[in-house]
Order: sequence, then structure tokens, then C-alpha cells
Amino acid sequence: MDSEKLLKLEAMRHSASHILAQAILKLYPDTKLGIGPAIENGFYYDFDFAEPIEEEDLPAIEKEMKKIINQELDFNQIMMTKEEAVEYLKKTDQVYKLELLDELEGDTFSFYVTGDNEFADLCRGPHVENTKDIGAIKLTKTAGAYWRGDETKKMLTRIYGTSFETKEELNKYLNDQKELENRNHRKLGKQLDLFAIIPEIGQGLPVWLPRGYTIRRILEEYMLDLERSYGYQHILTPHINKEILFQTSGHLGFYKESMYAPIQIEDETYYLKPMNCPAGFMVYKLSPKSYRDLPYKLGEFGTVYRYEKSGELHGLQRVRGFTQNDAHLFCTEEQLKGIINETLDLLLIFYKDVGFDNYKFRLSTSDRGKNPEKYSGDPEKWGIAENTLKEVLVERGLEFEEMPGDAAFYGPKIDVQAVNVFGKEDSISTIQLDFNMPKRFEIKYIDADGSEKQPFVIHRALIGSFERFFSFLIEHHGGDFPLWFTPEQVYIIPISEKHKEYAKSVFEELKEAKIRVHLDDRDKSMQSRIRDAEKMKIPYVVVVGDKEIETETISVRARRNKEEGLMKIQEFIDNLKEEIRNKESFRDSSK
Amino acid sequence: MDSEKLLKLEAMRHSASHILAQAILKLYPDTKLGIGPAIENGFYYDFDFAEPIEEEDLPAIEKEMKKIINQELDFNQIMMTKEEAVEYLKKTDQVYKLELLDELEGDTFSFYVTGDNEFADLCRGPHVENTKDIGAIKLTKTAGAYWRGDETKKMLTRIYGTSFETKEELNKYLNDQKELENRNHRKLGKQLDLFAIIPEIGQGLPVWLPRGYTIRRILEEYMLDLERSYGYQHILTPHINKEILFQTSGHLGFYKESMYAPIQIEDETYYLKPMNCPAGFMVYKLSPKSYRDLPYKLGEFGTVYRYEKSGELHGLQRVRGFTQNDAHLFCTEEQLKGIINETLDLLLIFYKDVGFDNYKFRLSTSDRGKNPEKYSGDPEKWGIAENTLKEVLVERGLEFEEMPGDAAFYGPKIDVQAVNVFGKEDSISTIQLDFNMPKRFEIKYIDADGSEKQPFVIHRALIGSFERFFSFLIEHHGGDFPLWFTPEQVYIIPISEKHKEYAKSVFEELKEAKIRVHLDDRDKSMQSRIRDAEKMKIPYVVVVGDKEIETETISVRARRNKEEGLMKIQEFIDNLKEEIRNKESFRDSSK
Repeated sequence: MDSEKLLKLEAMRHSASHILAQAILKLYPDTKLGIGPAIENGFYYDFDFAEPIEEEDLPAIEKEMKKIINQELDFNQIMMTKEEAVEYLKKTDQVYKLELLDELEGDTFSFYVTGDNEFADLCRGPHVENTKDIGAIKLTKTAGAYWRGDETKKMLTRIYGTSFETKEELNKYLNDQKELENRNHRKLGKQLDLFAIIPEIGQGLPVWLPRGYTIRRILEEYMLDLERSYGYQHILTPHINKEILFQTSGHLGFYKESMYAPIQIEDETYYLKPMNCPAGFMVYKLSPKSYRDLPYKLGEFGTVYRYEKSGELHGLQRVRGFTQNDAHLFCTEEQLKGIINETLDLLLIFYKDVGFDNYKFRLSTSDRGKNPEKYSGDPEKWGIAENTLKEVLVERGLEFEEMPGDAAFYGPKIDVQAVNVFGKEDSISTIQLDFNMPKRFEIKYIDADGSEKQPFVIHRALIGSFERFFSFLIEHHGGDFPLWFTPEQVYIIPISEKHKEYAKSVFEELKEAKIRVHLDDRDKSMQSRIRDAEKMKIPYVVVVGDKEIETETISVRARRNKEEGLMKIQEFIDNLKEEIRNKESFRDSSK
Repeated sequence: MDSEKLLKLEAMRHSASHILAQAILKLYPDTKLGIGPAIENGFYYDFDFAEPIEEEDLPAIEKEMKKIINQELDFNQIMMTKEEAVEYLKKTDQVYKLELLDELEGDTFSFYVTGDNEFADLCRGPHVENTKDIGAIKLTKTAGAYWRGDETKKMLTRIYGTSFETKEELNKYLNDQKELENRNHRKLGKQLDLFAIIPEIGQGLPVWLPRGYTIRRILEEYMLDLERSYGYQHILTPHINKEILFQTSGHLGFYKESMYAPIQIEDETYYLKPMNCPAGFMVYKLSPKSYRDLPYKLGEFGTVYRYEKSGELHGLQRVRGFTQNDAHLFCTEEQLKGIINETLDLLLIFYKDVGFDNYKFRLSTSDRGKNPEKYSGDPEKWGIAENTLKEVLVERGLEFEEMPGDAAFYGPKIDVQAVNVFGKEDSISTIQLDFNMPKRFEIKYIDADGSEKQPFVIHRALIGSFERFFSFLIEHHGGDFPLWFTPEQVYIIPISEKHKEYAKSVFEELKEAKIRVHLDDRDKSMQSRIRDAEKMKIPYVVVVGDKEIETETISVRARRNKEEGLMKIQEFIDNLKEEIRNKESFRDSSK
């Protein structure tokens, strides 16, 4: 959107917020006003109501707003002295505005007046000229908000709304929002029985329900196969580790706030591990390594526990316990570029196979020139690592944003960022060099010349967290997962009692072919069973009745393209296998 | 062994221990004697040496013993008064014996004298008549042992030995011991790189190394498939759970000693879960259940943490954190027998498939008649459950030991017991009824008549703990795992440099066929590479050289039957697939 249009929208929405306040005072005269700014995609206004209002009251308020707008009132700026302003606000008993005024500096203060002094608000503007310029409005929801965002202060009622130049634009926006809300992984997680956050079990500690766990296992097995084909070896280390590991790693120094309280066992102290690296390094050290053992690739589906404030927890996206598709790659300087390239190969294969294309790369480098003291490790190695990361991204033609000074103190990194339905960005994958921990753990190899060297060590997590990545997968696909990892691929629905036996035989044949199939022979109408399958976003629904039995066929309804067809069971199985093999995405039949 | 023979062996071994003491005093005159009993399979004697001895000294001691034995000395019992005994022991300066004597009651004390008063020991007997009756002897090892087993007292040197009537029996025993030691899962775990206990990570917290983790994943996937085919649904719950769950379950009351210290997170208290049940029950309760939903089978590979004293930890067999192949089965009374039968079906299929046949069933029932207060729950339901468990075992013709009074307070159970290489028995699988927790968690279903009922709830773990079960699997198979889950199925060894290319193509072909194959083209002699493969117990070693390249074949050496043969690659693959499909065990080609 160009900036002129943006400014115009902002003025419209800011003006709409004034009209909202004006309408509220008309309908609820005792209300005290907080603040009412334009925000991204709309506006809000905070109110202190004498009697609480409900979301059901919004249509009436909106109606009142439209009445005001239709009067085609002008917005006019007037300037008051402090005295005049205080007098005006005292007269209207606007205590919150008085508090704001009290903190403002200057001789005169700007107010915007609607029409013939129907409503005036302490405000710097800008506004549209006339209420008829506000466009199409919609109040969207209410929420609680502390006065000035301070939880020791009073909780006010925030009313959200938006406006657009035309009714069409408004409707498009509202529909898009609804579509986004329908993709919200928390909503879909519930609807599709994928996961649950159960208060009695704990906040930020998701439970993988059977349908979600099916997906997770498929992705785990897929990842094991993929990584093994690249020479990775996989281990599994315990969830609690002894204190000495985190003393050696340094986590107890610089990462303690993210760790949970220690557990005493006899005379030893243990911690829930916040990272898999220390235990992984101990496995590297189980036997002496030579240059012939490099590159050495040690993977782990490692579950870690990190502290997050309860207020920051969000579905599967921000949790307190999660499982990384973690790996530590140990290599020589000569192998570094190949290893980074190989890691990106794996990343891109994985994203393509799960049908995920809504991400961007970020390269975090140091600002060693300015702040050499910020970084640990040999500057020469830093240079090699940073150049290699950049070179690889450039040579592959991958777009990326470079963030100098954003490297961790222990090394530069490539992160992959994704954006959720609310527009919030988070890292989903990471490839990080580490010059700190390998030194602390004395990670070595014997080179061809017999000398002891420290290998380059890369932490990488393609699925940075199964939980978070899954949340993005859910939102990206809107719950319509590619056939190869969707939990249930086919529902079979016999039209009536007498078709059950045939349905059962179709079910057995699909099961035998390793298709994830469910037989829904409940005593409910066919239509209602089909609706249930649709609600669960089942890719294929097979309906069988007299016709199908007679012709030894099945009727297949494909969710993807709404096509329906009569076919032989074997043909259907062949089609499914083909779609699974090709890892087709629901919305991409060309892949 | 009959009891007469056993008594004879005991007398022989006890006599051998006297001869050991006599030999020690001859070789190390300043030694003070502790005690020297016969034990299962042998004897020992504890000594306080003036200078420590080593295991290398045992052959010389054994030689001295044989010299004494060959003198064909008689054993004679003599009785001494307290005075005489004290005088004798003081004269020989046997301070430990004096301490023992001091605590004995009576007027006269028994000593056994060898030959013409060469050696006398405070002892109740019995002994053999003459040293020639001692049979074939062998000193096996030394160990440290606190005087009277009290760690505040002095550490003595214990020398172990054994004796058998014939040289042949002795050798057979020693060979068997060696074979058992070679099966010890801790030894094999190291030799085959299956797992490691790393002190810095923690005691009793095993790390699954790549080869062990491969086996674990295969068994997990196998179990998922098997259980899903029986209608199980699988979930995954977090490793820490909120306090309220364990208050509700009652664990904080009766199980707290086995739980680790709590972790405070903001204003909530969490525990490492010692059981998966509470979280599983919460998942059952996520939606209301009706009789139509039963039987409801909820499985989880759930990792739990339970306190064990550090002194009781043993390899993978007794650990502090382990993963159960857990499940909770909810059913009606009418379904109970079917469910128990089905669970035993699964158990027997699993044992057969992993080639495990070294177990026995144990049925633990209540002694409600005598001690009704020991048990929680409805007596009528207890009766139904106990009868059903027993009926099923009897009807299936499974041998079992019934243990009345051994039921848990919450319900009766069937356990499966296995015995390790040291003769120690442990539970590996369990099927338990529970009448307590379902009540505490208000687990309900709506019956056909609309009434609310409590289902029967069965905890079952076929792989009670992946860790412990794996230890038994290792020992049972002696590391020669069935092909289907052995970590590496084939090693390929090119005879020399010029055969590497062909070897690589064979490798690729096997890999393509999903065989777990390793190409060993290191610059080492063929013989030494074959030895390495043997050490790792690789089932098939493929050697390729000129002859194989010429004839487009491979030379296959089978570890199982030591057979070697030239064959086409496809034929080999077909054979492997067949063996995998049949889940053949290494020592059982008839299966």
C-alpha cells in the first residue's frame, strides 16, 4: 500500500474512533474515556463503563455511529489553554483525559471537535475533514485493557473496530480475517483433535492427541530417513542432566533464567535440560575422533524445557516444553561449506515435502569491528564462518535479510522465519555456528598430521520445535494437510445397513494397502456422516451403496477438487499411492 | 539338582574355603582371617592382608591349595572351651575370629582341623572327610568386602572360588559363566555401541547410542503398527505435570518417595511424572464418553522418572528414567474378558516376534478374605477381575504362578517375569486392573440406558520399560538380534582398492532395497575388517573381489550358520526380505 493511502486510512480510522467515543457517550452518558488511536488494520477506544457492556451491544453502538456519520459533521481542530482544557474536561468529568493532560507540556492543547461542538476530544489529529469521509465501518470485538497498560491500574473495556474506503474493501478484509481465524492453529487443533493444552497437566505443556501424534510420528520417521540418507546418526539423551554439564557449557551462567529450578537427587543436582548440546557433546567424546570420522553428524529428537512467562504462552507456538529435530555437525574447515550447503539442501527438501513455502531467511552476523568484546572465539574462524554462510546463501540465489550485530555471542547463524495468522514472526529453523561450547567441552579431533584440532561445530534444527513448526504447518495448510502425513486419509461411509459388509471389505483392502482409513458405519444419515468427514477435513470420502456393490466399485469424493467419481478399489489405491509418493499439497496439484 | 548332591557340594566348597585360608597363611603368614562360607556355585574367604594382593596372585594361591589337597589330609572336628578357643586364637593373632567368638554363646565351640593340626578354624562344619574329596577347584576373582558388611569397618579382600566333583563339571561351569558374562547386557551394550551411562549426564539415565536407538525406533514403530491394528490410539504427554494431577491420583500420598523433588514455575508446582496414567486420564476426560466409545484404548510411549537408590542402579535394568510402552484400556464388564485376551494376544505376538521366550507369568491376587482393609474399590468388581484374569490364563493353557495377597491395593494383575544373566528376576510386562484412580479421576461413561457408569480400567505395558526390556533382549540374544531389528544387517567389504567401485554399487542396491547396510572400504586388511564385523555381530558380511565382479555376484558370509556362498545380489535381497518378513531369530531357523 502506498504511504498516502496509508495516511488516509489512518486518519479515517482515527476519526472513526472519535465517532465511537461520541456514540458511546450518547448511549452511555456516564462513561469515562481512555485513549482511542488508529492501529494496524483499524482502531480501538478504551472506556470505563458505569455498567459493563457485552459484545452483543456492538451492533447498537455501530448503528449509533452510522447515525452520527450520516449527519456529515465536520472535524475541526481548536486550541485551548491549559485552564480552558482543564475546565472543559472537568465539566464533562473526563478523569482519564485530565490525567493525560496533566502530563502534557506546552501552552496550548489541541482538541478535535465534531460538528457543532457535539463532541470534543483531546487529540493531536490528523482527522478527515468530514464524517462522510470515514468510509465503511465495523466494530469487531471487545477486550479488557489496563489503563495505560499498567496492571496495577483499572481494567477498562477496549472496543475494536475498523474502517475502509469502500464497503467492498471492508467486506474483503472481514472475510480475510475470518479465513485467517479459521486457520488459527489453536482453533484447528481443537476442531481436528490434533493437540490440547489441559490446565491440570500444565500451561505451555501441550498434549499430542492421537491425530496430531500420527502426524508427528510420520514427520519423525520421514526426518530420520532423510537424515540417515545423509549420514546422520541419531541418539536419545535423558530429559534431566547433571549440573556439571551446564556448568561446563556455561548455561548456568548466561542462560539460567530460561532454566527451571534444580532437582536434588541424593547428593547430586539435576536440571531439566534446556538444550540437547551438552549431552550430545558427551556422546561425541565417548571415543577419540580422527579426521577420518569427520564430518560427524549426531542427531536427536530432543525434548527440552525452557521457561516462558505464562503471559507469553501461545498454543503450540510458544510453549515451555518442546522437541527439537536437533543435530550437531562436527567438521573440518575444508568441509564447512559443503556441510552448510548440505544442511540447506535438507532444509529445502523438507519444506518442499511438507508443502511449506511461507518463510524467509535471515543471516545474523557479528559487528566484531565495532564490538569485538561481544563475541567469544577466534576472530579468524568467525570470519571464515560468516563468509561461508553468506557465500552459500548468495550462490544458491536464496533471498535473505542480513542482520549485522545479531549473531549470538558464540557464533553467526542462518535462521528461517515464519509469520503466524496474527502477523507475528518466529524462528522455525536454525543453522548456527558455535565457537564457545566446543572449547568449553574440549571437543577435538586428531588431524592427518597427528595434531589435535577443534572442529567447526554447527547446531542445526530443521524442525526447530515440532510444536511450533506444527502450528505453522496447521495454519499454512489450514488443516488440509498433504495426503502423505494427514492423519486419516480416507473415510468409508456405507449408505445404509445393507452396505456395511461391502464397506468393511473395502476398508480391509485399503488397510492392507497401508492407507490410513476409517470406517464410519454409525447409524446416522449419510449426509451427516459426510459432514463429519468434511469437518475433519478428510481428503477422500468413499461412499458405497447398491450401485457400487453391483459394479464392484466405490464412489470417491475428493475434498481437494470437489470431484466425485466411480472407480475400482485398486485404481483408487494406485491414485492414493501416487499422491502420497509425490507428496502433493492440498492446494497444489501441479507439484 | 537333588538335595543330597547339593549338601555334598556345599561341604566340598566349605572345605575348599578352609584350604584357601590354610594356603593363604602359608604364603602370607601375617594375614588375618575373616569368614569363609560356601555360597551358591562356590565359596569365598575374606582376608586382611598385611600387603594387598592382586588377581594375578590367584594362580600361585591355587597351586598352594592343590599341594595341600594332594596331601590327602583329614578334616576333624574338635571342641574347645571358651578359654581354650581364646587362647588358640590369641596365639595365632586372629583378631576377627576373636571378635566372632566373643559374640557366640555356649560352653564349647566347634573348630575344624585339617590333617595333623596344620590348620584349625572356628567353624560349625560340616566338611568332607578328607581333602581328596574336595574335587576340582578354581579361584575365580577378588573383590573388596567390608568386615561384617559394615561400611564403617575395615575393607577386607575377598577371594572367590568354586569346586566341583569332577574337572569336567568345573570346566563346564566356568565356560557357562564366561558365556553368561559375554551375554551381560552392560558388556554387550559397550561392545556393540548400543547405549552408554555417562557419569556427567547422570546415574541411571542411559543414553541411547545410534545403534541402540535404531533398534528402539524399530520396536516403537512395530508396536505402534501392532497396537493400531487393534484399535489403539496414541498420545504424547509432557514429562512434567502439575501437582494437582498427583494430588488427584493420590501419588503424592502413597508414592511420593519414588518421585523427585517438585519444580516451582511461577505460582504453580510441577513434578517429573512417575506414571503416565494421570495425564492419560485427563485425555479420556477431554470429551464425554458413551458405551459406544468403549473399549477405548489409549496408548503412549511415556517416559517416566522414578527414584531409585544409586546403589541399586544396574545398566539398563534398573534406571531412574525410562519409557514405557504404556496403554490404558477402558471397557465395560462385558468387554473385560475379551480385552484381557486381546492384551495377551498382543503380548504373545510381540514376544514371538522379538524371539523372546525366557519368561513366566505371575498372577497377583488379593487376600480380601483375610485382609479386606488392604484393598480399595468394590469387592464385587475385584471378584470379577480376579476371576477373569485367572480364567483367561487357564483357558489359554498358560502356566502361571498365583500369588494371593500380592495384588496392588488398587487391583489384581498379571506380570511377566524374566531372569537376567546373574539370575536376578524382574518384571518386564504388566497387565493391571485399577479400581482406585478411575474413581479419583471420576472416569465415567454413559451406558445404553443413560446411566453414568465407571468403566473397568486396565493399565498395561507390554514393553514395561524400553530400557529394561532391551537389556533382557540383549542378554537373551547375546547381541545376535533377529535380522528385522538388528541395527546393521549387512557389511560390505571390497577385498582391495580396485573392488571399491563394485562394492559401492552393491551398497547402493541394498540401500535402495531398504536394507541397513554399511560399506567398510577402509584401508585395512580384509581379514581385520571381517573381524570387526564379527565383533559387531553383523548377520551378513558381503565380500567382493575379482571373482564377484566377473560373475556379477557377491560372496555372502552368514554369521548364523557360518555358511558362505556366491549369489546374485537380487537373490541375496530376496533372502534377506524373507528372513525379515518371517522375523526369524538368530538361533532359530525353523521359526
